Amino acid sequence: MAIAASELAADLGLSLQGGDVTLSRVAPLDTADPGSLSYLADKRYRAHLGETRAGAVIIRSADADAAPCAVLLADNPELAFAHAAARLHPRRRQVSGVHPSAVVDPSADIHPTAAIGPLCVIDADVHIAADVELGPHCSIGAGACIGAGSRLVARVTLCPGARIGARNLLHPGAVIGREGFGFAKDGERWVRIPQVGGVRLGDDVEIGANSTVDRGAMEDTLIADGVKIDNLVQIGHNVVIGEHTAMAACSGISGSTQIGARCTVAGAVGMAGHLHIADDVHFTGMAMVTRSQAAAGVYSSGIPAMPNAEWRRIIARLRRLDVLHARVQQLEQALTEAGQNGPAPPSE
Amino acid sequence: MAIAASELAADLGLSLQGGDVTLSRVAPLDTADPGSLSYLADKRYRAHLGETRAGAVIIRSADADAAPCAVLLADNPELAFAHAAARLHPRRRQVSGVHPSAVVDPSADIHPTAAIGPLCVIDADVHIAADVELGPHCSIGAGACIGAGSRLVARVTLCPGARIGARNLLHPGAVIGREGFGFAKDGERWVRIPQVGGVRLGDDVEIGANSTVDRGAMEDTLIADGVKIDNLVQIGHNVVIGEHTAMAACSGISGSTQIGARCTVAGAVGMAGHLHIADDVHFTGMAMVTRSQAAAGVYSSGIPAMPNAEWRRIIARLRRLDVLHARVQQLEQALTEAGQNGPAPPSE
Amino acid sequence: MAIAASELAADLGLSLQGGDVTLSRVAPLDTADPGSLSYLADKRYRAHLGETRAGAVIIRSADADAAPCAVLLADNPELAFAHAAARLHPRRRQVSGVHPSAVVDPSADIHPTAAIGPLCVIDADVHIAADVELGPHCSIGAGACIGAGSRLVARVTLCPGARIGARNLLHPGAVIGREGFGFAKDGERWVRIPQVGGVRLGDDVEIGANSTVDRGAMEDTLIADGVKIDNLVQIGHNVVIGEHTAMAACSGISGSTQIGARCTVAGAVGMAGHLHIADDVHFTGMAMVTRSQAAAGVYSSGIPAMPNAEWRRIIARLRRLDVLHARVQQLEQALTEAGQNGPAPPSE
Repeated sequence: MAIAASELAADLGLSLQGGDVTLSRVAPLDTADPGSLSYLADKRYRAHLGETRAGAVIIRSADADAAPCAVLLADNPELAFAHAAARLHPRRRQVSGVHPSAVVDPSADIHPTAAIGPLCVIDADVHIAADVELGPHCSIGAGACIGAGSRLVARVTLCPGARIGARNLLHPGAVIGREGFGFAKDGERWVRIPQVGGVRLGDDVEIGANSTVDRGAMEDTLIADGVKIDNLVQIGHNVVIGEHTAMAACSGISGSTQIGARCTVAGAVGMAGHLHIADDVHFTGMAMVTRSQAAAGVYSSGIPAMPNAEWRRIIARLRRLDVLHARVQQLEQALTEAGQNGPAPPSE
Repeated sequence: MAIAASELAADLGLSLQGGDVTLSRVAPLDTADPGSLSYLADKRYRAHLGETRAGAVIIRSADADAAPCAVLLADNPELAFAHAAARLHPRRRQVSGVHPSAVVDPSADIHPTAAIGPLCVIDADVHIAADVELGPHCSIGAGACIGAGSRLVARVTLCPGARIGARNLLHPGAVIGREGFGFAKDGERWVRIPQVGGVRLGDDVEIGANSTVDRGAMEDTLIADGVKIDNLVQIGHNVVIGEHTAMAACSGISGSTQIGARCTVAGAVGMAGHLHIADDVHFTGMAMVTRSQAAAGVYSSGIPAMPNAEWRRIIARLRRLDVLHARVQQLEQALTEAGQNGPAPPSE
Repeated sequence: MAIAASELAADLGLSLQGGDVTLSRVAPLDTADPGSLSYLADKRYRAHLGETRAGAVIIRSADADAAPCAVLLADNPELAFAHAAARLHPRRRQVSGVHPSAVVDPSADIHPTAAIGPLCVIDADVHIAADVELGPHCSIGAGACIGAGSRLVARVTLCPGARIGARNLLHPGAVIGREGFGFAKDGERWVRIPQVGGVRLGDDVEIGANSTVDRGAMEDTLIADGVKIDNLVQIGHNVVIGEHTAMAACSGISGSTQIGARCTVAGAVGMAGHLHIADDVHFTGMAMVTRSQAAAGVYSSGIPAMPNAEWRRIIARLRRLDVLHARVQQLEQALTEAGQNGPAPPSE
């Protein structure tokens, strides 16, 4: 789709400087051609600006002088770019209606503007709102509800009774509402505790490919509006996640943990169960979260990778920290006994 | 389903105190209403007992006096509750028979009481026993066997020849019997070693959503009776897992590792290959298991998350443990040389 | 399939010693029977050689004297075994043609030798080359291409425009080309940045079960020839992986990281985004990779699991490393002030 930069500027409420051009795609600064729109938000890429061949660049006004092309001025270039890219690369909606190969229970209530893709299975008493799109191989369990404008890309499983808000984006392989991992012990045997809670996703939620969100044991697992979850993430039963929290791939949240609003969880973070994490908490990658965190801030753990020989040495030393500690104590004692103005015993 | 507390008590062999009530659902102590059955097993929730509005509570006799409602006395309240919840919230079985949209090889042997859901694919020489339920989109490879009463919730893949025992519960997206990750090197290229072993799951096994269990290289991958595996877990080729071991989400077990009976593996644990883990070993969350463990007990690793600034300081210190160690050594030497009753060199 | 050892030797260019035998399967040294072919590559299994009942063993000439059976001499026994196993256990190809239950867009270009399994969905403008096999429930998005001889085992999702080379092996549940995890912030809300890049897999690539490979934001995610990726691995948008790199299960690579050729990444490794990893870098299991690595070599991190009580003690000491450091400093100072030939302050 080709658009004049001036039209794009008008649509997005940006000011255009440096002459009009026709734009037909987005591209990074360093590989853009004259038909491309690019942007500069991250300083790391500033070196590419002077030599870009882009037709236009979305940029902060402070950086505009350095651009060799037309500029669209924005306070938040990345956000403006997100909107511009959606204009230049519109997604084609699925055609409304139910594909003849889909298997649909007669009691399902499907809005006529919704699109049900090939080989989907829609069970009894399902409710699908306007403009919903289901790609191929989705399976919607009995009594599940999907809000207006939501899109299940392909092969998404909603277990019975799952409730999905409006404008959700669920990626291939996601499983919403599995019966959670709850057992009682009978001697050495595990006996399943029926998981009779539900699962509710707010509006504008995103769940990544092959991620799993378990239903609650007795009450619901809750994912609030605007939460974004990446691929291969596990959300245990009765977890509650606050608004606009984002979670990167390979993380796992154990049962009944509550996470606040506007948190970020980087990749491969693990959280124990029954924790309370405040609003605006940020965990760096691979953090091992074993305690509740009542204060906003950045939390971390883990040892960054280093050359193997160094790591072996460090770990050996770490395992003998007790011995080192004892040696320091002996030194302190020896010095004190010698009456030599030895240091006062520090308090730990 | 509504049941009298007295009937439930009789069914479960419990004694009822405090008058009969009609129960129609389960609920936690703090949100229960008079039609709800609740339970108290974990001391953490004891504070909720005095104010619960539940109609009845399953409880140990020692705690019964504090309950403001009818009580069902049990030595193991959680186990009694699991059975009670199954009575109050019975699952509706799929209707027996093969859904007309399923694609079934004529050589497959399917018991008439089994239920094969819509859009399943059953390949040649498959054997499906009595009362098996397959939800939508399951795919059963040639020669696979599924034991009586097992349930494949939806979209489960059994690769050719996989053998599943009785009363298994396989959640959506599980892949059982993938050809494992085995390669020989040909210069810099990897050449696949055909994986001709199989995979066998015992009775009462559970495999979580999107978890993967690889078939063996030459002999079988084995998962014993009563093993419970959560979501997004990887089991490598030729792994052996003993009876009643439970494994939480996001864990990965490398090839040929053998895990004993009654172990518990918390979330996101990683195990190297070719290890032997004894019976009754417990790993805490995110443990990095690099050695065999011959003794029962609890094993751990990892650094709990802390404020980022503190973590940065600690890690910097950790990387210079060698230097700290050298300084202590120098201090010891200086004290000894000064002839000042310096401490005896401690043995490490 | 039964083959004479002499025929196998001739096919594989190996020399046979110790008389001919008929072989019909492969087996490990310790459980082989006279109809089995085994091999010895790893010293760990050498103890089994003397007592093996195998009909023949593939072995280095230096080890041949210890074999109680026929031997096939190979410089690389594991590689020769991989080829021999493929001869003894040939995989039956799917029958060419499109299964009548598949849903295929009329614009799709499918080679007549290709096999499209039951209940696959092939969207518009897809190109499928010769000898491709698609198992059940695969979904191929609009415009995707699959190179000759590739095999999608079952339930693989190729998102629109994904490009797969020749002889790929994609395991069940793999998702190739999901729209990556890219957002701009609008106040506290996340706004999706359209992901208009693609995803390209070279020749001889393997992607494990339930693994996910995201498409690029503006340019392509690239996986080079011969790369082997295990189960439950996440590859972020714009990641580039060099030739013949192998990656074990449960690892996650964040966006825009570039990994060189011939690297190995053990299980559950996490890599931050925007890193550059050189050729021939090897990461051990659960490594936390936060920096670029310009030099070939082995890199590690993490604390191996230990008994819980020991771990608690060590972690407590670790969190007080600052205090220990201060105490050593005080000791040094005290000794210096006492004028007792105290050690020179070491440089950190």
